[in-house]
Amino acid sequence: MAERIAILGAGAIGLFYGARLAVSGQEVHFLVRSELEAVRSRGITLQSKEGSETLSPVQVHATAESIGPVDLVFVTLKATANDQLAQLLPPLLGPQTAVVTLQNGLGNEEVLAQWVDRAQILGGLCFIACMRVAPGVVSCLHRGSITLGEYGRPASDRTRHVAALLEQAGVPCRCVDSLAEARWRKLVWNIPFNGLSVAAGGITTDVICADPALAAEVRALMEEVRTAAHALGYDVPAAFAQKQFDVTPPMGPYQPSSLVDFKASRPLEVEAIWGEPLRRAVAAGVATPRLALLYALLRRLTKA
Amino acid sequence: MAERIAILGAGAIGLFYGARLAVSGQEVHFLVRSELEAVRSRGITLQSKEGSETLSPVQVHATAESIGPVDLVFVTLKATANDQLAQLLPPLLGPQTAVVTLQNGLGNEEVLAQWVDRAQILGGLCFIACMRVAPGVVSCLHRGSITLGEYGRPASDRTRHVAALLEQAGVPCRCVDSLAEARWRKLVWNIPFNGLSVAAGGITTDVICADPALAAEVRALMEEVRTAAHALGYDVPAAFAQKQFDVTPPMGPYQPSSLVDFKASRPLEVEAIWGEPLRRAVAAGVATPRLALLYALLRRLTKA
Repeated sequence: MAERIAILGAGAIGLFYGARLAVSGQEVHFLVRSELEAVRSRGITLQSKEGSETLSPVQVHATAESIGPVDLVFVTLKATANDQLAQLLPPLLGPQTAVVTLQNGLGNEEVLAQWVDRAQILGGLCFIACMRVAPGVVSCLHRGSITLGEYGRPASDRTRHVAALLEQAGVPCRCVDSLAEARWRKLVWNIPFNGLSVAAGGITTDVICADPALAAEVRALMEEVRTAAHALGYDVPAAFAQKQFDVTPPMGPYQPSSLVDFKASRPLEVEAIWGEPLRRAVAAGVATPRLALLYALLRRLTKA
Repeated sequence: MAERIAILGAGAIGLFYGARLAVSGQEVHFLVRSELEAVRSRGITLQSKEGSETLSPVQVHATAESIGPVDLVFVTLKATANDQLAQLLPPLLGPQTAVVTLQNGLGNEEVLAQWVDRAQILGGLCFIACMRVAPGVVSCLHRGSITLGEYGRPASDRTRHVAALLEQAGVPCRCVDSLAEARWRKLVWNIPFNGLSVAAGGITTDVICADPALAAEVRALMEEVRTAAHALGYDVPAAFAQKQFDVTPPMGPYQPSSLVDFKASRPLEVEAIWGEPLRRAVAAGVATPRLALLYALLRRLTKA
């Protein structure tokens, strides 16, 4: 029997995974705000170098009430829109509803926990390079995978069930016993590259890597993230950070998502990616001076 | 008898002190490049809230050869123009010529020492808030003072003689036995405020001070500068740094000189103000992570 799934947020991530799940046979409902009519009339199109596929019709909704309780919610809003969750989440919840945040950075599970029983919360990290290029249209450079975990618990049958749904939709999925550790690992790349791409004036990752002073700052920021993660009990090996650096130059002139948002004058996830990790490092007694400076600059640069 | 004085550089600092010295009776020759005709025909005008004074005619020259040897040279070029000194300095030098660099940051005396006997070199720090608002026209918010010292030697009769000339010209002047210490002290303000005003997107010092995260970064950068200075043997008390912070909010919406240059797309003195202090801190084994990150960002932000 198809699962009833709600997708909260019609950006690149929400459209991509929601469409994949719908094509694979699940009953997927999209909450779409400003672009509702476009998605309703034209469907969702996923473009990649392998070609293009279109899902139409799409079950679009203007309100969470019109969706009603579901088995599974994917939260794909920008973290900066989390204040909408108070209104959007409750109509979707039943006692067994699993809520998966696919958002960046730290602190999103904690926000969900204000509206959902902690036991119903999961988190996922999307290793994907995609961009919403028009309403309902997602261009995908690299389809990657999802790393999935439970909030504050090891992976369970429920985790593996959600992973299986994603695998059936063609999304490689890995279950981990420590979602928090996986999130810190992802920050090893996001904190320096998303941050410096914006703070250094809007430059792509290849420019960062080719600038000796900035490349040294990437490595130093990665060390700060590792040190903070270790102090909090997470394992982030030096070899992992090294690999995160090494995979970047071959990506070419890549624009981290924060840079895409910055250039489009959209809000950045400053608190989730830099602010919350900094606060946790400080609380753990770890000095992260570069992260502190980067956070202060980004906070100011993204003020209206 | 009037001293023969050459002013190298017709920016705000050169015009201001040169005009003051000329008005006080010294024989002052200005080397002026692109704005020569304007300064020749209209003279130099100093504007302040007390009123306006004009020096005319002005002894302007297009080449150092046309000035010839002088008693005293003030180098008021931007440090980014130091490669011109090889051509500009030698024609001005006699065996007794004193060469005073009024430039910002570290490393300028060392550059002069390539062309001038070390024993002839002095340095001065200008505590002044002024801006060149048109060719030959300087607007002065705060006339401040000069701190004067010998390069690598304590103050001497020569230092006091130069100071006396400036005092006669209405410029309060203080002689110090450690020019290097005075330069590190000035960096306590310049490194954070000049740097953050540019890196945080072009903001004035009052905005920095009113932003809790940026204000904390100012204090942390001041501590890094103090720590580096101490390791290099200079005394920069905590109370001094505190005072440097405290005097800033009352200055209102002040644009540090680096921000003025940045907004005008002129080169910034990145190496003199951030690069050279960072290299000296590193050489002394002091960790200055915030300075390192700020330097890397400014270096990139000011690349064409």
